[in-house]
Amino acid sequence: MAQKSSVPKGTRDFSPEEMVRRNYIFNTIKTVFQNYGYLPIETPAMEHLSTLMGKYGEEGDRLLFKVLNSGDFLKNLDQNDIESKNLSQIATVIAEKGLRYDLTVPFARYVVQHLNEITFPFKRYQIQPVWRADRPQKGRYREFYQCDVDVIGSNSLLNEVELIRMIDDIFSVLGIDVTIKLNNRKILSGIAEIIGAPDKMIDITIAIDKIEKIGFDLVIEELKSKEISHEAIEKLKPILQLKGMLKEKFPKLQEILHDSETGMKGLEETMTVMRYLKDLELKAKWQLDLTLARGLEYYTGMIIEVVANKVQMGSVCGGGRYDDLTGIFGLPNVSGVGVSFGADRIYDVLNELERFPDEVTHTTDLMLVNFGDHEAAFSLSILKKLHQSGIKAELYPDAAKMKKQMKYANQKGIKYVMLIGEEEMKSGIYSLKDMEKGNQVKGNLEEIISLIKA
Amino acid sequence: MAQKSSVPKGTRDFSPEEMVRRNYIFNTIKTVFQNYGYLPIETPAMEHLSTLMGKYGEEGDRLLFKVLNSGDFLKNLDQNDIESKNLSQIATVIAEKGLRYDLTVPFARYVVQHLNEITFPFKRYQIQPVWRADRPQKGRYREFYQCDVDVIGSNSLLNEVELIRMIDDIFSVLGIDVTIKLNNRKILSGIAEIIGAPDKMIDITIAIDKIEKIGFDLVIEELKSKEISHEAIEKLKPILQLKGMLKEKFPKLQEILHDSETGMKGLEETMTVMRYLKDLELKAKWQLDLTLARGLEYYTGMIIEVVANKVQMGSVCGGGRYDDLTGIFGLPNVSGVGVSFGADRIYDVLNELERFPDEVTHTTDLMLVNFGDHEAAFSLSILKKLHQSGIKAELYPDAAKMKKQMKYANQKGIKYVMLIGEEEMKSGIYSLKDMEKGNQVKGNLEEIISLIKA
Repeated sequence: MAQKSSVPKGTRDFSPEEMVRRNYIFNTIKTVFQNYGYLPIETPAMEHLSTLMGKYGEEGDRLLFKVLNSGDFLKNLDQNDIESKNLSQIATVIAEKGLRYDLTVPFARYVVQHLNEITFPFKRYQIQPVWRADRPQKGRYREFYQCDVDVIGSNSLLNEVELIRMIDDIFSVLGIDVTIKLNNRKILSGIAEIIGAPDKMIDITIAIDKIEKIGFDLVIEELKSKEISHEAIEKLKPILQLKGMLKEKFPKLQEILHDSETGMKGLEETMTVMRYLKDLELKAKWQLDLTLARGLEYYTGMIIEVVANKVQMGSVCGGGRYDDLTGIFGLPNVSGVGVSFGADRIYDVLNELERFPDEVTHTTDLMLVNFGDHEAAFSLSILKKLHQSGIKAELYPDAAKMKKQMKYANQKGIKYVMLIGEEEMKSGIYSLKDMEKGNQVKGNLEEIISLIKA
Repeated sequence: MAQKSSVPKGTRDFSPEEMVRRNYIFNTIKTVFQNYGYLPIETPAMEHLSTLMGKYGEEGDRLLFKVLNSGDFLKNLDQNDIESKNLSQIATVIAEKGLRYDLTVPFARYVVQHLNEITFPFKRYQIQPVWRADRPQKGRYREFYQCDVDVIGSNSLLNEVELIRMIDDIFSVLGIDVTIKLNNRKILSGIAEIIGAPDKMIDITIAIDKIEKIGFDLVIEELKSKEISHEAIEKLKPILQLKGMLKEKFPKLQEILHDSETGMKGLEETMTVMRYLKDLELKAKWQLDLTLARGLEYYTGMIIEVVANKVQMGSVCGGGRYDDLTGIFGLPNVSGVGVSFGADRIYDVLNELERFPDEVTHTTDLMLVNFGDHEAAFSLSILKKLHQSGIKAELYPDAAKMKKQMKYANQKGIKYVMLIGEEEMKSGIYSLKDMEKGNQVKGNLEEIISLIKA
């Protein structure tokens, strides 16, 4: 009986055309990571729900995909639970595993579990899918890849500098013109302290984070709604409106934050990073952006966000320094810094800018036309030599009509087609057709191989 | 509060050391696939359970990981269902999605769903994890990668030949000496027909499949227990014991199978494939093995299994021709042929034979020792030049004790360490220590770069 064939809501198949483009992005990123001494790890798709619950807020708990226990999943379920219809209680009993929601919590769990095997500073990257039962919408999926790179076990600001250099390298290889925005959570803490609302740091930073999206006036409204005093807001205004070059901003900030030890530390860190960057002559623009806050609570030092310059799109990369990644798993004071690359968004940016290189459309160099059993047997030996020369080549498997074979080569973006019929077999001189230019040349195998490789 | 940190039973973390080795295997396989014009696809981890259920037998249904519906998962549950404690009925209502069990069924679903976008013959590979709620034991995991390559939409035996060539290339690059065992399901059908037990083909082939594991006598016992007649078993015995070279086997088989059209077709297909192979001079040994059956019901033509020669291990690769992959999804008569590589087993074989290449232990070429802020700032500019020359290099982020930095380089398998102190900064002549040989050389940056690249 025929069944419907579709994928679950919010999930996607990736076709060869899409995969080749995605792999180009992942390979570019991985190559740069490896150049800087970062190595991959992988963690299981499923984690104990006890590992995941409570790490992403109430909303996050709700969005975790839960995996039904194997065997008699009703075994430990209480009659009272069933009658109460207490969903989260029932779920806890019948589903003890969940799909990972991000790569950060599994990484923290990994570090604690493998503490004795790890050489610190631990420079790792991780590229794997994550799952969230979010309402699917344009650009938001229930399964998507995250691409995280972190170094933990070192407080040195050289790590921040290194991450920024990797960002610069990656987007430069990808041919995307970006701006790297930097800020420091300690500066934000200092500001909250100075305006007399230290306990409101998170509210203030979340509000500040929205300044580009909703504008200055609505942010002020939001701050009021968070019960931040009129006085505090008045003190905050000039800071939010700080304009001008770094040279001018810094002295002003030093003046404002003078009495906050944390704030002054944040400024010092920021200046150190920027001094390093100045000497390194990045290709990307970079700037201090005091309105950059990033929602996540666990950042404690530098925060960073990367936007593509000529495209309307959210950030393509972001992250920061955190001082207590593994505390929740019983290992306090492990400091780290890391960023995450948004593969889906980078894909969309490259598409929009038409910056995917030629190699992603021409995945196979050459197709041998199949003229029948006799010719095919001969073509196999030619194919072997082509492969040995490092040419990506295939023989059309059936002696189908020429038109059909040519259509196949065309749709697959194959660059050359080689014709080996009776005459070519005898003479050893083959015809090579350039599928893009349409012209045809003749030559022996050696000549044809060097032509394709040129 | 500290939480236990562990992964669910039967799942694994992969450390950098393991990942680099695994990636070496996957990259080798992918490179060969791409050389032959195969392209990647990916499908979601979750499928509708209606896509998966009933495809893997009763046992398979039981081993599927089921994902609890989001939101109110009790919504559609009947009071009667709850009281009856009918597990499979309840599971059907509260969990409509499941984790993929293999890559074959999702591929079949993919082909039907994207029929209009696919150029046939469709040559695809797919390397993704699958999940099975099997009892974990040595070498058997609940999450493991499958690595499938198939071509569908072509009946040509050239596809079989191509797959065998890819197998030969892959194991030759990996440096594993293998034997490729070939058989054909049509021969097995023919045998069942000839001995008068055509409806017992599956029973017979499953029994035959065990001949190496449990021996000739126990296979005969098993055949008896399947209600295969004494007469049929007597006719089967000489076939199972056919020995000798291909040249001798074939005429005997032709004689035996003379009255079975299917059997004769199977012989003809096998001879055609073998004729092609003979001309291609494979590096691997290959042989017709009539005891090779492979358990899966859907194979209809050539079947293939690859074993490593000097290692006690199950097969490292296997597959075959199937004539109705997509029928269950409403698209009949789509013929394909494919094989699956066992990455975990290949990993174990390479480990046992110590055949992993040098590159998997020396992932970073060079580490710059950190002597302090001043030297680090200078080292960053040197590092930039090293990266630009394509050298994988890192600067130790902290000005830690020399011993600690050297230990880090050593544990990470870094090949060279470069020392840039006050004196080196002045003179532009740097010291390079070879971590394996222990010796030290001096030179300017250019000299050092060419030494590392040599």
